[in-house]
Amino acid sequence: MSTYDHDSIRAVQWTGTHLRLLDQRLLPQRCVHVDLDSATEAAGAIRNMVVRGAPAIGVAAAYAAVLAGRAAWREAGPDWRRAMEPALQALADSRPTAVNLFWALGHMRQVMDGLPAEADPEPALLAAAQGIHEADVAGNRRMGDLGAALIPPGQDVLTHCNAGSLATAGYGTALGVIRSAFAQGRIGHVYADETRPWLQGSRLTAWELVQDDIPVTLLCEGAAAGLMRQGRVGWVVVGADRIAANGDTANKVGTYGLAVLARHHGVGFMVVAPTSTIDADAANGSAIPIEQRGEEEVLELAGQRVAAEGAGAWNPAFDVTPAELIDAIVTEKGVVEHPGGRGVTSLLD
Amino acid sequence: MSTYDHDSIRAVQWTGTHLRLLDQRLLPQRCVHVDLDSATEAAGAIRNMVVRGAPAIGVAAAYAAVLAGRAAWREAGPDWRRAMEPALQALADSRPTAVNLFWALGHMRQVMDGLPAEADPEPALLAAAQGIHEADVAGNRRMGDLGAALIPPGQDVLTHCNAGSLATAGYGTALGVIRSAFAQGRIGHVYADETRPWLQGSRLTAWELVQDDIPVTLLCEGAAAGLMRQGRVGWVVVGADRIAANGDTANKVGTYGLAVLARHHGVGFMVVAPTSTIDADAANGSAIPIEQRGEEEVLELAGQRVAAEGAGAWNPAFDVTPAELIDAIVTEKGVVEHPGGRGVTSLLD
Repeated sequence: MSTYDHDSIRAVQWTGTHLRLLDQRLLPQRCVHVDLDSATEAAGAIRNMVVRGAPAIGVAAAYAAVLAGRAAWREAGPDWRRAMEPALQALADSRPTAVNLFWALGHMRQVMDGLPAEADPEPALLAAAQGIHEADVAGNRRMGDLGAALIPPGQDVLTHCNAGSLATAGYGTALGVIRSAFAQGRIGHVYADETRPWLQGSRLTAWELVQDDIPVTLLCEGAAAGLMRQGRVGWVVVGADRIAANGDTANKVGTYGLAVLARHHGVGFMVVAPTSTIDADAANGSAIPIEQRGEEEVLELAGQRVAAEGAGAWNPAFDVTPAELIDAIVTEKGVVEHPGGRGVTSLLD
Repeated sequence: MSTYDHDSIRAVQWTGTHLRLLDQRLLPQRCVHVDLDSATEAAGAIRNMVVRGAPAIGVAAAYAAVLAGRAAWREAGPDWRRAMEPALQALADSRPTAVNLFWALGHMRQVMDGLPAEADPEPALLAAAQGIHEADVAGNRRMGDLGAALIPPGQDVLTHCNAGSLATAGYGTALGVIRSAFAQGRIGHVYADETRPWLQGSRLTAWELVQDDIPVTLLCEGAAAGLMRQGRVGWVVVGADRIAANGDTANKVGTYGLAVLARHHGVGFMVVAPTSTIDADAANGSAIPIEQRGEEEVLELAGQRVAAEGAGAWNPAFDVTPAELIDAIVTEKGVVEHPGGRGVTSLLD
């Protein structure tokens, strides 16, 4: 059995003619794909979170640039470069935070710069987009194998939020490590936090793992400490939204508490993310801005008010785990074990 | 201002003629009281969780015995004692776990044993039930003052689940300490975990505190570690479902993780419970049975399936906090600081 079995989900695909996105807003109740044939539609789909997860957004934007090039050649012929500009701008305006979006559009512009005016740009743009797509999957598989090698057989793992195929071009970051560890027989089962308030664990991670025949058991965040005390998990494996130069890592709220609990119980704590997640300009975690989201995400449930009128809510979307609590940061360029004290910038050399 | 202001909620009341229960299943959307005039109705209300919380159930059962005595005297005259039996049995069968139910019924039977056959038993039974009711409130106020004295002014507190007026005859255990600390100006604000999967924090604790004009901010369990790291709370204050002889404490799932996080951040951890919660027959926490509840509580939300079909759930209702992580156990008979190593049985002497 290949290490890369258990990898059936694609949030972003190229059909041969269209950009196909899995509408993540409807999961897990409905698995609906939408086929898009214009960059403007694609920008709307990114803005409306049909597709989410920084690497997945980057790949979708690259394919959207292919659609923009095709339309521009049809409409403007040799003036296709200028005709593409409005669509590229709409893509750049779709989401402000995900750095992969801007990286992918920048790469596509570099390819455009090398093309002649007199030829249809679509084939070259498609090749570039497919290159980005394949590199993301290959990076995830590389991280999967590097991370899995740290997991001795015999215990299960716990993950938080969704850092899977649905957030990337495929295979996933934290879930890539979990897919590799499962295929290699290192783990037989995955525990997943439900991840309040958005329930990415229940809605997305459980769905991903069920699709790929990897047994998954959900738990409320409050049960994680008891799980660790029972010795059921050897590692906590999570993704990252931003990693500071010293290794401090911002990720979905609840991650930091898991790191404290893991250290208390002698459980390993692994962060899995591509090197594009490292922000060398942030010296440490205090330089990472933490998004505060609306109180209604906590005070309401399925659109219904649950808490008494008059109660407030504190709803940070992320927290910062100090590097000292992290046992390994796994990237496509290698692993930094025990990043506390030496940071991760050596990976960027 | 009295220490006992901010104490307006009564889950169980005697109207003068009837047992009045606040239907907790409808909170916080609707605040509905039901008046019961038979013990059979009261047994149904306990079974169906109109009233919940071990001390509150005990007081409700005592008043239900008064209703049973009234009906028996009306129907059977001097044979009232025998005529009460079916109702007392129905009450004993209503819930299996809450030890206060059996304690309260045993106390009422002792009173019955001392009464003459020729007189209406209702006045004596009512006096006994009111005695149980008043002793529970008085015990909670005593705990409130003992616990509040441990909280220096200047930081807020965090609580978990609902250990308030709604779970007792009034004032609450953990929320009794919080009410006293607020009235004394020691705290100005309360953080409350939403407490998945039942959301007792969002549904019950927030409602209680809003009713009594105590500012409350809810948070998801995953945010508690970040809250502590920011130095916003000086104590975590929780109730208990069972305390072993060595001080190990079973309480709502999520409590143990809070205790680990509190110790990591130098935050105090306080358990508040009457001495009737101490199980001297349990040497330590491993002797306390942990109820496993249905997977659907995690896999569904507001009656709708959230997680993919095929995903499982691990849903323990409680966890055990080792005595070593507890800074103080507060009872109506006094406080045991640092119970780790010496336990709590001295309180029972």
